[in-house]
Amino acid sequence: MKSVGQLGEDGLIARICGDLGEAAHVIVGPGDDCAAVGTGEELVLLKTDAVVAGVHFLSDEKSTRVGWKAVARVLSDFAAMGGEPGELLITLALAPEVSVDWVDGLYRGMNSCLKQHGGVIVGGETTSLPEGTPTMVSVAGKGRVARANLVTRSGGRPGDDIYVTGRLGGSIHGKHLDFTPRLREAAWLVNNSRITAMMDLSDGLAKDLPRLAQMSGVGFELNRDSLPRSEGSTLAQAIDDGEDYELLFTSSDDLKPAWDQKFPELEITRIGTLIEGAGDSIEGGWDHFQQ
Amino acid sequence: MKSVGQLGEDGLIARICGDLGEAAHVIVGPGDDCAAVGTGEELVLLKTDAVVAGVHFLSDEKSTRVGWKAVARVLSDFAAMGGEPGELLITLALAPEVSVDWVDGLYRGMNSCLKQHGGVIVGGETTSLPEGTPTMVSVAGKGRVARANLVTRSGGRPGDDIYVTGRLGGSIHGKHLDFTPRLREAAWLVNNSRITAMMDLSDGLAKDLPRLAQMSGVGFELNRDSLPRSEGSTLAQAIDDGEDYELLFTSSDDLKPAWDQKFPELEITRIGTLIEGAGDSIEGGWDHFQQ
Repeated sequence: MKSVGQLGEDGLIARICGDLGEAAHVIVGPGDDCAAVGTGEELVLLKTDAVVAGVHFLSDEKSTRVGWKAVARVLSDFAAMGGEPGELLITLALAPEVSVDWVDGLYRGMNSCLKQHGGVIVGGETTSLPEGTPTMVSVAGKGRVARANLVTRSGGRPGDDIYVTGRLGGSIHGKHLDFTPRLREAAWLVNNSRITAMMDLSDGLAKDLPRLAQMSGVGFELNRDSLPRSEGSTLAQAIDDGEDYELLFTSSDDLKPAWDQKFPELEITRIGTLIEGAGDSIEGGWDHFQQ
Repeated sequence: MKSVGQLGEDGLIARICGDLGEAAHVIVGPGDDCAAVGTGEELVLLKTDAVVAGVHFLSDEKSTRVGWKAVARVLSDFAAMGGEPGELLITLALAPEVSVDWVDGLYRGMNSCLKQHGGVIVGGETTSLPEGTPTMVSVAGKGRVARANLVTRSGGRPGDDIYVTGRLGGSIHGKHLDFTPRLREAAWLVNNSRITAMMDLSDGLAKDLPRLAQMSGVGFELNRDSLPRSEGSTLAQAIDDGEDYELLFTSSDDLKPAWDQKFPELEITRIGTLIEGAGDSIEGGWDHFQQ
């Protein structure tokens, strides 16, 4: 009997998604950064995302930073669809020995991120784990996006340029806890240019770019020399590390001049091109079950 | 430094809720069965709820039953607000040794419940736990309710009768895995009578009735002899056991005649009265951190 560890994350998700029902008002189902549902001009975005001690943060990390990260990850997914945050529900799964101070700090971190970037916590749940079990913070969020602004992973076309915001690699040194969800930038992109596909970089370019290409039914050519690397990061780290929380997106427009004027403090870089057929392949990135 | 185990679940929730922001479109915030948000005639219900191996189900339980329970708990909360289910997101937190067959069964159970009672899975997340950690299935759901039909825990008034559906106690013998979320019954109640307050019984009458009374700012008199007990359950079990997933609600209407005609197969029982002042107290029920 196969285990989920043997099957791996992508395999497990593919298997699960094969069994799900469909409904007319579900515009985007499983497999993208968020689900999108609705029948009108404004769609509802739905997303759930968890952080686990020992996996996404160290057990002795400051809980304000853990709270920021837990919420910012979901906001980053709203950004990736071209949308904005609405209401959030927080599930805390805690062993009884966790200190109340730790929980207080967690909420301070979450609220500080929401205050800065939008969104409000409207409920949630606490559940007890056996003593010694790692803490888990799961954030379920509802966002919104104008139907006309919705961007998925699957709209990329051969010939589109591939862009990333910011610099990649080395997030483990701190950025993975303190990053800025690219809501403002994504909103500008979907309102001012024709973005064909978009996602946020959470599992590393090596995992995420092939996902975008596959969902768009295209290949890609990656210009490795062009990859914007964080200070001190090697090329391999920029490709593999993950948790960059930058936007990866495609367009046939020349976006750079207007972008540089609008966001002088944050670069975008053209890192390659979508092509017909198989194209490059890259190995690496983060698999939740296999590493 | 106090731990969450020492503070207890209600204390922790009260502490968390004190720190949350408010927003005009949040009609019902933390502390009720669901949050309710919106500005129009139809409100969005938001709910998240998790089941953990060793707490909410045994590790060797059939995963179809676990899936049914995980989803039915959330549907039961939509019912408690007078609403109906919409889209759901599933978070699976799994140790790598969990078998793929187990996950398949889990989704079969979830989809079987949704097919019967409404709702559709539109996404979710898988995350890895360290080897040996208990499996956790968290369900985040979006539902809907006509603003005119919304029922909270806080509308009870002195003089209202207190009702429950079905029979209480002994859920541990199987019902906690196979129960029917009372969506049909709740919909009939909110459309045909004046229900002043409602919730579902998840932590036991001993915990849940005082919560409803407190949120309504009233006391209660409980007629213990009238409590409808499941076959084989003692009075103490009917009060304490929890996981009944029946509706607890209040009204000044005499609901029984019309109910009995509409739902001959499911009884309702008047178990007491809301009163001004302190009234009865009951001890017991389930605390996620203290037991």
